[in-house]
Amino acid sequence: MSITTARVKIVKYKDNLASYQEDIVVKEAPLTVCCNNVEVATLLCSPEHEEELAIGFLVAAGLIKSKEKITAILHNTEENAVFIKYKDENNQSVLKRYMTTGCGMGMLLCSEEELMASDKYNGTLSLEVKNIILLMKELQHKSELYLNTGGVHSAALSDGKEVIVFREDIGRHNAVDKIIGYATLNDIPLNDKVIISSGRISSEIVLKLAKVGVGGIISRSAPMDRAVEIAKNFNMTVIGFARGKRMNIYAGEERIRELSE
Amino acid sequence: MSITTARVKIVKYKDNLASYQEDIVVKEAPLTVCCNNVEVATLLCSPEHEEELAIGFLVAAGLIKSKEKITAILHNTEENAVFIKYKDENNQSVLKRYMTTGCGMGMLLCSEEELMASDKYNGTLSLEVKNIILLMKELQHKSELYLNTGGVHSAALSDGKEVIVFREDIGRHNAVDKIIGYATLNDIPLNDKVIISSGRISSEIVLKLAKVGVGGIISRSAPMDRAVEIAKNFNMTVIGFARGKRMNIYAGEERIRELSE
Repeated sequence: MSITTARVKIVKYKDNLASYQEDIVVKEAPLTVCCNNVEVATLLCSPEHEEELAIGFLVAAGLIKSKEKITAILHNTEENAVFIKYKDENNQSVLKRYMTTGCGMGMLLCSEEELMASDKYNGTLSLEVKNIILLMKELQHKSELYLNTGGVHSAALSDGKEVIVFREDIGRHNAVDKIIGYATLNDIPLNDKVIISSGRISSEIVLKLAKVGVGGIISRSAPMDRAVEIAKNFNMTVIGFARGKRMNIYAGEERIRELSE
Repeated sequence: MSITTARVKIVKYKDNLASYQEDIVVKEAPLTVCCNNVEVATLLCSPEHEEELAIGFLVAAGLIKSKEKITAILHNTEENAVFIKYKDENNQSVLKRYMTTGCGMGMLLCSEEELMASDKYNGTLSLEVKNIILLMKELQHKSELYLNTGGVHSAALSDGKEVIVFREDIGRHNAVDKIIGYATLNDIPLNDKVIISSGRISSEIVLKLAKVGVGGIISRSAPMDRAVEIAKNFNMTVIGFARGKRMNIYAGEERIRELSE
């Protein structure tokens, strides 16, 4: 039994028959993220890779910018909390601003100012249709927790050819945050990478990727209109409904080779 | 063209061919909810039924308890905001507590205290297998926006026999909040009702329904372990994977008639 699933007794109804059975459901656990003694957020997540999640969350929120300044990461499993020490003279004021303006407003809701303040993507990501098809296939094969429980999202980081890291989580944002945390902790540059995802492509996800400098996102699900707009503004690639040998390219098609061959 | 969708130009790749086409994507719009001049939250939502969403959000958050005390609802479409006046002497202190403790911590994250403080469900909801099968079928037929765009969640309120109101939204929580708002504005009691949903059953959704006194939730998707625990604590019904003539009953099976016939 995995640490991310639990067994429950259910009544299964099928073909006009009800029977008591055991079933596997996905676990949901609260995780409190503390940075320099400030409780920044409590996330509901799949209880694995908690340190990555905490770091990724803080990086995506703009509260941590450099791995070198992280002086301690402590995962307290009894309190369901990750405590992070970050040595930066601006951190207290950034945290304060985040806690007073960021939190009630939808964590990553993009104001026009924020959009203007960030840089356009100018990395070297390059994609090929045949590799995208293979990557989506791989994502699906890796999604064990989904196959067992139907209750999670999966995300992967790729250079366009291979899956570098794969994470599953009950939260669409958490799965991506775990990837960002992994990349931060392992010094993996993001600006020649793409995120592969099972979930819908919302503006918040695209903005998050823009902030950390990822080149785009590929998903088997649908994008929202603002997500496409933001991706175009940031010069990023958005591919939706990537299923089998099909895909819809909503933004950044110039980054995909062999598209018109 | 619906107010909840937009047309975009895409590159469609299929059968080794790429072509420029028009595609429909679901719209995503920010909506600011203001109660008594306090900005409570900005939600990303499908831009329809905004007043229901604002009211439902406030009711689910415990900030509004009675329709009679709502003295004004104003939807300002230019500012993407709904302004609500609520006449209650405790409102300012409740709002203040909510804004300082509620927001950063995950809106409805259930502390043990909160769980103990709420009442167990003791309403009169009664369900029948054959009706559940029909209701799920109806939900699927109604899900036009999903069929067109693949990007939304749907939710419905039912007495176990008929669909009373149906809503779609890009947010799983928003769809349920719109239902709660509709019920509040139309004086529809919730304690003999069930929510039917397309989305995963998380603890936050079950806690939200427990707070407003709904008897349970039926979904074609999976539940999480804490959602099942909370439902059991509150004496509520949770049915997952309700697809075709199958369903898994995770909690509150005593409320379903003809289960063992």
